[in-house]
Amino acid sequence: MAISEHSSSKIKIGIVGGTGYTGVELLRLLAAHPQADLQVITSRGEAGVSVADLFPSLRGHYDLCFSEPDPSALAACDLVFFATPTGIASDMAPQLLDAGVRIIDLAADFRIKDAQVWERWYGKDHGGPHKCPELLAEAVYGLPEVNREQIKTARLVANPGCYPTAVQLGFLPLLERGLVDPQRLIADAKSGVSGAGRQGKIPNLYAEAGDNFKAYAASGHRHLPEIAQGLSLMAGSSVQVTFVPHLVPMIRGIEATLYAELKDTSVDLQALYEERFAQEPFVDVMPAGSHPETRSVKGSNWCRMALHRQPDSNVVIISSVIDNLVKGAAGQAVQNMNIMFGLPEQEGLQQVALLP
Amino acid sequence: MAISEHSSSKIKIGIVGGTGYTGVELLRLLAAHPQADLQVITSRGEAGVSVADLFPSLRGHYDLCFSEPDPSALAACDLVFFATPTGIASDMAPQLLDAGVRIIDLAADFRIKDAQVWERWYGKDHGGPHKCPELLAEAVYGLPEVNREQIKTARLVANPGCYPTAVQLGFLPLLERGLVDPQRLIADAKSGVSGAGRQGKIPNLYAEAGDNFKAYAASGHRHLPEIAQGLSLMAGSSVQVTFVPHLVPMIRGIEATLYAELKDTSVDLQALYEERFAQEPFVDVMPAGSHPETRSVKGSNWCRMALHRQPDSNVVIISSVIDNLVKGAAGQAVQNMNIMFGLPEQEGLQQVALLP
Amino acid sequence: MAISEHSSSKIKIGIVGGTGYTGVELLRLLAAHPQADLQVITSRGEAGVSVADLFPSLRGHYDLCFSEPDPSALAACDLVFFATPTGIASDMAPQLLDAGVRIIDLAADFRIKDAQVWERWYGKDHGGPHKCPELLAEAVYGLPEVNREQIKTARLVANPGCYPTAVQLGFLPLLERGLVDPQRLIADAKSGVSGAGRQGKIPNLYAEAGDNFKAYAASGHRHLPEIAQGLSLMAGSSVQVTFVPHLVPMIRGIEATLYAELKDTSVDLQALYEERFAQEPFVDVMPAGSHPETRSVKGSNWCRMALHRQPDSNVVIISSVIDNLVKGAAGQAVQNMNIMFGLPEQEGLQQVALLP
Amino acid sequence: MAISEHSSSKIKIGIVGGTGYTGVELLRLLAAHPQADLQVITSRGEAGVSVADLFPSLRGHYDLCFSEPDPSALAACDLVFFATPTGIASDMAPQLLDAGVRIIDLAADFRIKDAQVWERWYGKDHGGPHKCPELLAEAVYGLPEVNREQIKTARLVANPGCYPTAVQLGFLPLLERGLVDPQRLIADAKSGVSGAGRQGKIPNLYAEAGDNFKAYAASGHRHLPEIAQGLSLMAGSSVQVTFVPHLVPMIRGIEATLYAELKDTSVDLQALYEERFAQEPFVDVMPAGSHPETRSVKGSNWCRMALHRQPDSNVVIISSVIDNLVKGAAGQAVQNMNIMFGLPEQEGLQQVALLP
Repeated sequence: MAISEHSSSKIKIGIVGGTGYTGVELLRLLAAHPQADLQVITSRGEAGVSVADLFPSLRGHYDLCFSEPDPSALAACDLVFFATPTGIASDMAPQLLDAGVRIIDLAADFRIKDAQVWERWYGKDHGGPHKCPELLAEAVYGLPEVNREQIKTARLVANPGCYPTAVQLGFLPLLERGLVDPQRLIADAKSGVSGAGRQGKIPNLYAEAGDNFKAYAASGHRHLPEIAQGLSLMAGSSVQVTFVPHLVPMIRGIEATLYAELKDTSVDLQALYEERFAQEPFVDVMPAGSHPETRSVKGSNWCRMALHRQPDSNVVIISSVIDNLVKGAAGQAVQNMNIMFGLPEQEGLQQVALLP
Repeated sequence: MAISEHSSSKIKIGIVGGTGYTGVELLRLLAAHPQADLQVITSRGEAGVSVADLFPSLRGHYDLCFSEPDPSALAACDLVFFATPTGIASDMAPQLLDAGVRIIDLAADFRIKDAQVWERWYGKDHGGPHKCPELLAEAVYGLPEVNREQIKTARLVANPGCYPTAVQLGFLPLLERGLVDPQRLIADAKSGVSGAGRQGKIPNLYAEAGDNFKAYAASGHRHLPEIAQGLSLMAGSSVQVTFVPHLVPMIRGIEATLYAELKDTSVDLQALYEERFAQEPFVDVMPAGSHPETRSVKGSNWCRMALHRQPDSNVVIISSVIDNLVKGAAGQAVQNMNIMFGLPEQEGLQQVALLP
Repeated sequence: MAISEHSSSKIKIGIVGGTGYTGVELLRLLAAHPQADLQVITSRGEAGVSVADLFPSLRGHYDLCFSEPDPSALAACDLVFFATPTGIASDMAPQLLDAGVRIIDLAADFRIKDAQVWERWYGKDHGGPHKCPELLAEAVYGLPEVNREQIKTARLVANPGCYPTAVQLGFLPLLERGLVDPQRLIADAKSGVSGAGRQGKIPNLYAEAGDNFKAYAASGHRHLPEIAQGLSLMAGSSVQVTFVPHLVPMIRGIEATLYAELKDTSVDLQALYEERFAQEPFVDVMPAGSHPETRSVKGSNWCRMALHRQPDSNVVIISSVIDNLVKGAAGQAVQNMNIMFGLPEQEGLQQVALLP
Repeated sequence: MAISEHSSSKIKIGIVGGTGYTGVELLRLLAAHPQADLQVITSRGEAGVSVADLFPSLRGHYDLCFSEPDPSALAACDLVFFATPTGIASDMAPQLLDAGVRIIDLAADFRIKDAQVWERWYGKDHGGPHKCPELLAEAVYGLPEVNREQIKTARLVANPGCYPTAVQLGFLPLLERGLVDPQRLIADAKSGVSGAGRQGKIPNLYAEAGDNFKAYAASGHRHLPEIAQGLSLMAGSSVQVTFVPHLVPMIRGIEATLYAELKDTSVDLQALYEERFAQEPFVDVMPAGSHPETRSVKGSNWCRMALHRQPDSNVVIISSVIDNLVKGAAGQAVQNMNIMFGLPEQEGLQQVALLP
């Protein structure tokens, strides 16, 4: 198998924290990207280990090893992805930006605009107050369907969370047009277990999560403020959204079933959605009557969605699916990279979903 | 392994249509029931075949064979369970009732009180107009937590659907007490694949339903009118409920996440639920902050539920889980049998859930 | 749900180390056992926690809490089960036996008769040399189909490993009768993930073990010497067996496919097996041409097996299935308890497998 | 998403029978192949239906519809893949070959060289005697690692079965070199459920195959004669092989654990295997001590394998994994196409496996 060569014309890329599922997914996608030149991938715990030893799926595709984080090596990159736990990127971002490196953070350091809201939801587990609140205003929320223009020139992109991607894309046309009651939004979302990360926690064991289904964090999940912030920006005013995540015995995939009350039931919603996303390379509005399946996007960067109404009801139901590791993480990050570096937005992201 | 003996003091039982998942589950439960004397189990397709040949899990527990439906053999029973597709029980019920046999129908023939509503949702696939609408008024809807007294003396019990059981039990205390807006109920429900029955349909193949998640029938599922009817009776007036089912890659289990708007957010909901179900042998209100898992009821007749609220929200969230084949079908049928025949309600239903 | 009462006529039982899968399975089975009176269950890590809080499946069935290991409380029991990691039972056994308590160890402390062999395979991870080699000779290997008589009077029973149970029962009739070449035995075994225990290790995560299959420990698994010892005793001379375990993306169940070369291909193997196990309450020889499925024993104490030969071949193939947590652990322990205390061998073990 | 354009310089491709899993996998792979120009895909049952309607994973990648089989449309192709049930290709092959079309048959029509052996194993279910035995000698068995030279110029390639690919590659170096006893080969193989095809059969339902494991066809599977033929050719004399397949609750993947008796235990097997496959683009000999996982090849064309020996044993154990739909079917077919048309062998097949 050909292992890609370094080239001066390609984007020099660093990855900080590549031992989690987001990291290995970035490696998978970048292996297929003709303009990506991965120069360094760091991991304190696995420094010196070959990426292909940790992830045998990469044997024959990479001969790179994890290395200790080295600021100078990262500073020599054009772009650094942070595939780290929340709290790391905000530590390292200022100096990298100063060195002229552009950053895409796949964690939650820069998603929330309000540092106090951030601290309330993330501070306890991620080291207290935000480490560089001065960057929050500059950071661009990397949802291309909303912020494509700002992403083009961004130095620092906050890659959206997985649930927020599925939920925001699903509600987008309705809220932009003011068609639903913004105080009565419900997002019932379901995720595969890879969303919990590659950590040895008992609840994520096969013998615990297999043949099982449950809601979790129903009193308030960390993606709630990110979702509320994004939907409020779309609506132009503060929304009230209830968000309940669930754990599905599958590896990849998120499905979000969204409920909203229509102000006017005569609108042609199917046409509205098809039109809104007609130019989007990774949003697929399925035909009326369809139900998107998570496997139809497995391994791909697509978000597929469909609309429904029940008899004598003013509730619109949107089912929206993504692969949490692709459009919900690494794929969207590569999409943002393409936009930032003036490449075709689909470059390296044309994988057909793995079905069955 | 001891195979139980017939005895004159036990309940003489017939099962019509025992080759589906509801049938084999009845067999599993009745094998552990000290008062059950299974006399006949019918199947046109498998007549002459040993039940243990079709379901090797029953080897050593039954030496019975499936037989052609024989009216006289069924008429000699005290109780007949219909574990058939919808449309069969309404064909055979009148003559069995005339013969003094009591009936528990696990299909949908007698769940809907209004024959026209029934025909609208079931007529097309189940042979047109209802075959004995005159029995609809007499039929008792077999949800013991609501109708225990009527079940005791019922000749004909309509065993509830799986989704309707999880949804109705979850909303029950709120609607009985008028604490939520009855026009804004949402039930987002998820089921394991056994709910689709033991039929060779492509969408239910392992290679299709595995590692996958989807909504289905989002424009209106047949359990919707049953749910709406039940909730309306609880509320004392017509409710508006949105119900969306989903398919989970697991074998057994239903989780329903229910959303309703509180009229008054000061009510102690945890206490309300605990009190309402304190005497119920199969409803478990879990501690505040809990999230019931479907596996915690797998193979058992429990319904477990928990309550949640999110910050600054007047929406109450209830997560309710059952085993679709037990409390959602065969177990609830045995519970109804116990009630009808004056037995302890838990007789034969004390199985601990299979975890892990 | 009725929570069973203590009674002086029942067997007073202690469980040491009840927080793993073997422990919760013992709790599930003992809840259904009319003669079991669980007095104490210990756990250093979870002392003070209700068993039903750790395992919600037990809510309504137990009101017991885990407690710190207390020698006097254990010494007051008739029987103590060790559901601990290997190395604990050999620490505590001598004093409990002195106090007149009988012991069933579900770990590997007493399975291997030769203390040096034990140390070679277990010493490194379980604290060096065996702690009480003087008990190894007395300990009875708790495979009832082989050692029923000795178990009746045993003070100390070494409950067999999960793989060894499936493998030994499958080879038993052939080796006892000397029908195959004892130097060419192959056991290719496959286990669900619960066999790896309830520990937060990355390889056992759903996202790692799901939708995946692999061999492991192919150069030598710890169950190899136990298997070799058992088969050699059956054969009356030292055997050579190759044993390769595999990890299956399912929760419970072991299937072992066994291969041996027949010395004489004219023997009626089906009759031999049926006859050998005719009186065994938990071994089911399936009809010729059958293939036992692990789900046909899920949650039950059965071992089911079937025999095959391929055209023009002198190789006999045996497929043997058990539930690793029941016949492979807790169920066999209860079976041994029944034998030790003169109870009917099936008492409390009549569960029908959960299918589907 | 760009939908690829027809081009006169590309290979004009037809697919007969594209509605099964092999068909949709061919579509997935060909979408990424720069030299493939899919002109026609036939299906009697789905004629007129868009491939993207049947397989939503293809939405945005294909705008092709299934069509009725049309000899002239197929005759205009450079290459026709048969992704049909066995028995179809042998019906249509003669006239296509006469028209100058090259053929890769993914079914079993041309895998067995002896027409009588073929009829014994396939005749009953696939229409009696072979329909064009005169082509059997010409057909090249499409295992590139063995027959690369013949494939280059072949008109008709018989793409190997999935199990035979994993088994033959695993045994290849040993048999070529005569290092093991050819009369004592054992292949214990395990497959995901997609191997059973996209047909609505009860045993392949999620609720049947999920959380379950079993052997099947242990008395003789159809891949046995194909395996025996291939191994005999490698060994240069008739071998005796025992082959038992098993069904794993996963979608894709085959693992074969192979056992053979070494004539001489001093050979450096690791070096032998590494050397034999050093130039193979899709065979990965993993380091000593490794255990290949099926997920490490999921969606990719790799075969990964590792070698093991147990203490004091002359048995060599090889664990070999492939994706049954890629290296075991569609991927190997594309590899054969590349060889036949003088393209780089890895063209379009550089997908990294989807892990997790």
